Amino acid sequence: MQPAVVAYRGTVVENSHVVHIAVTDSTGSIVRSLNDPSRLTLVRSSAKAAQAVIAVEAGIMEKFGFTSAELALMCASHSSEPSQVEAVLAMLLKLGLTEDALICGGHPALGDAVNKKWAATGYIPTAACNTCSGKHVGVLATAIALGYSPVGYEKPEHPVQQHARKALAEVLGIEPGDITWATDGCGLPTPAFALDKLANVYRRIAAGETPAMKLVGEAMPSHPEQVGGVGRFCTELMQAFDGQVIGKFGADGTYAVGVRQAGNQPSVGIALKAEDGNVRVLYAAVCEALEQLGVGTSQQRERLAKWHKLVVTNTLGNQVGEYQFSFAL
Amino acid sequence: MQPAVVAYRGTVVENSHVVHIAVTDSTGSIVRSLNDPSRLTLVRSSAKAAQAVIAVEAGIMEKFGFTSAELALMCASHSSEPSQVEAVLAMLLKLGLTEDALICGGHPALGDAVNKKWAATGYIPTAACNTCSGKHVGVLATAIALGYSPVGYEKPEHPVQQHARKALAEVLGIEPGDITWATDGCGLPTPAFALDKLANVYRRIAAGETPAMKLVGEAMPSHPEQVGGVGRFCTELMQAFDGQVIGKFGADGTYAVGVRQAGNQPSVGIALKAEDGNVRVLYAAVCEALEQLGVGTSQQRERLAKWHKLVVTNTLGNQVGEYQFSFAL
Repeated sequence: MQPAVVAYRGTVVENSHVVHIAVTDSTGSIVRSLNDPSRLTLVRSSAKAAQAVIAVEAGIMEKFGFTSAELALMCASHSSEPSQVEAVLAMLLKLGLTEDALICGGHPALGDAVNKKWAATGYIPTAACNTCSGKHVGVLATAIALGYSPVGYEKPEHPVQQHARKALAEVLGIEPGDITWATDGCGLPTPAFALDKLANVYRRIAAGETPAMKLVGEAMPSHPEQVGGVGRFCTELMQAFDGQVIGKFGADGTYAVGVRQAGNQPSVGIALKAEDGNVRVLYAAVCEALEQLGVGTSQQRERLAKWHKLVVTNTLGNQVGEYQFSFAL
Repeated sequence: MQPAVVAYRGTVVENSHVVHIAVTDSTGSIVRSLNDPSRLTLVRSSAKAAQAVIAVEAGIMEKFGFTSAELALMCASHSSEPSQVEAVLAMLLKLGLTEDALICGGHPALGDAVNKKWAATGYIPTAACNTCSGKHVGVLATAIALGYSPVGYEKPEHPVQQHARKALAEVLGIEPGDITWATDGCGLPTPAFALDKLANVYRRIAAGETPAMKLVGEAMPSHPEQVGGVGRFCTELMQAFDGQVIGKFGADGTYAVGVRQAGNQPSVGIALKAEDGNVRVLYAAVCEALEQLGVGTSQQRERLAKWHKLVVTNTLGNQVGEYQFSFAL
C-alpha cells in the first residue's frame, strides 16, 4: 500500500500514512482512486447521513415536526456544546421521551472548549452529551414512526435495527449480505461496506437524488455548526464551500464528501479511509483530494489551509518540519 | 511493509499498523527483525539514555554531585509531576543556574493526573515542566563540565552540540556522517540513525559495557518513576522486569529496550518504530516482542497485560473488538 501523507522533521521521514481513496461519478463508478477504493470499511459516524435518510423515509419529519437543524444534528458527531445538548433534549421531548431513553454513555467532548470547561468544573457528561446523541434520537424516532417500541433500540434483533439492515442496503444500492455489522463506540450496530459505496451515497445525498436525500443534503450544509461544532473540521469544511459540499467524519479514520454539480464541475462523491486511523492526516488528505479534484474555487479551498498544510512545530512554536502528500488522483 | 498490529471491531479490520523491529545480540548483529530493522529513524527521546552516557563521560557526576535518581531524570520524558519538576529545579541549582537557563517551552503534561490538575486550575506550565527538562539540564551540565558557556546550548553550532555529534557517533559505533540531524519538539538538535543501532546501544547500556553505560543502565531501572511517571508505560515496563530491562519511549512512535543477561537468557537490544507514530500500538508491540523473545518470566510479562492485550470498548465500557498481532520474530 502506498503512503499518501508523509511527515518530515527536517529532511528525515518521521512518519508515513496510508490512505485509501475512492472518487465516484454520477453513475457510481470509481473514476479516481488511491490504494484500495473498495476497502471493506467500518464507516462509523460517516454512515449517519445515510442513516438520517432512512429515518426521513420512515416519516419522522412529518410525524414529529423536526426542523432542518434537528435533522442536521441527527447526522452529527457534535461537540457537546450546550446548545447542541439542549437541542437533543428538545428532540427527545418531541418523541415524548427523556434522556433516560438513550442507551449511549457520556465521554470526553470532541469540542476542545467544552472539554476544558468540563475538566475545570469536574462535570460528568451524561447520555445526551454523547457525540452521537442526535443519531440515537433519529433511531428512536424511526422506531416509533414504524410502530415499534423504542425500548432496546440498540439491539441487533430489535425491529428498527432489522429494518436498518435492509434499508441501508437499499440506500447504498447493494445487497444486505454485502454489509458486515459490528458495534459502534456509542453502542449501536455499525456497518462495514466497500469504501466507494460511501462515496456514492454522499454524492447522491449532496445531489438530492430522492426527496429524503434532498432534505438531508440541504440540512447538513445549511446547519454546519450542528454537524460538528466550533473549530471542528466538518463544520469548517461545509462553511468553506458555501453549500456545494457535504462532509462527515467517521471515527478511526473515515471521511465522506458529497459534491454538488456547480458550473462545469460535475457532482462527485469522495470517500477516504486512513489505514492507521490518524484523523489529523485524514483531514489533510481530504483537503488535498478536494484540491487535486479542483472542487470549488481556490479561495474556498484556501479557507481550509490550516487543515491542509500541516507543519511540525516545537514547544516554542517554531516550525521544524512539514507534511507532504505523496499521491496524485 | 507488513502490518504488525491489526485492530478488529467485531470481525472487520478497522485499522492496521506497520511497525519496524530490530533485535540485536551482543555483537550488534540483527538476529530478529520485522519490516526494515535499519530504518533511518528519528529516535527522539529514546536517544536520551545515550545522551546521558555522553554527559556522564564528560564528568558531570563528579563535578556536580548528581545522584542516580537525577541521572534517571536526564533519561526521562517525565510526567511533570511536582516532585519531578522540583528535582529539575534542584539540579539547575547544582549548576548555579535557574529555570531561565532552559530554552524549552511548557506544554500539556504527559501525566494524565497532572494535566487534569493544570486544566482545572488554569496553570500555565513553564520550561521546567517540559517533559525533556531533565535532558536539558544534562546538556547544560555537559557544556559547563567541558568548559563551554551554557548560553545557546540548543544551537547546532554551539560547541556542546558539536561535541554531541561526535560523541553520539562514538557511543553508537557509527560514523558522524551516518547520523542526520533535525530539531526536536523541545528545541534541541535530534538525531536520526539506523533503528538497529538504537537497539544495540540500549543493550550495551543495560549490560553496563562501559563505566558511564553502567551508571545509566543502573539509574533507569533503579528509578523508573523518574523516567516516566505514575501510570506511564516506561515506568511500568521497568518495574515489571525488576531491573532486568531498561526501556524508553521516543515521540512519534520509537521505543528502545535493553535486556540484561539473566540465567540462560542472553542480553539483547530491541528497537521498534511505528511507521504511523501510533504510541498505543507501539507499546503493545513492545510487549508482544518481549513475549515472543521470552524476556523475563511469564509472571513479569503478565504485569504489562493492560498495555499488551488491547481491546476496543464502547462508551458503556463493553468490549466490541480487539487488537491482534500479525508478526512473528
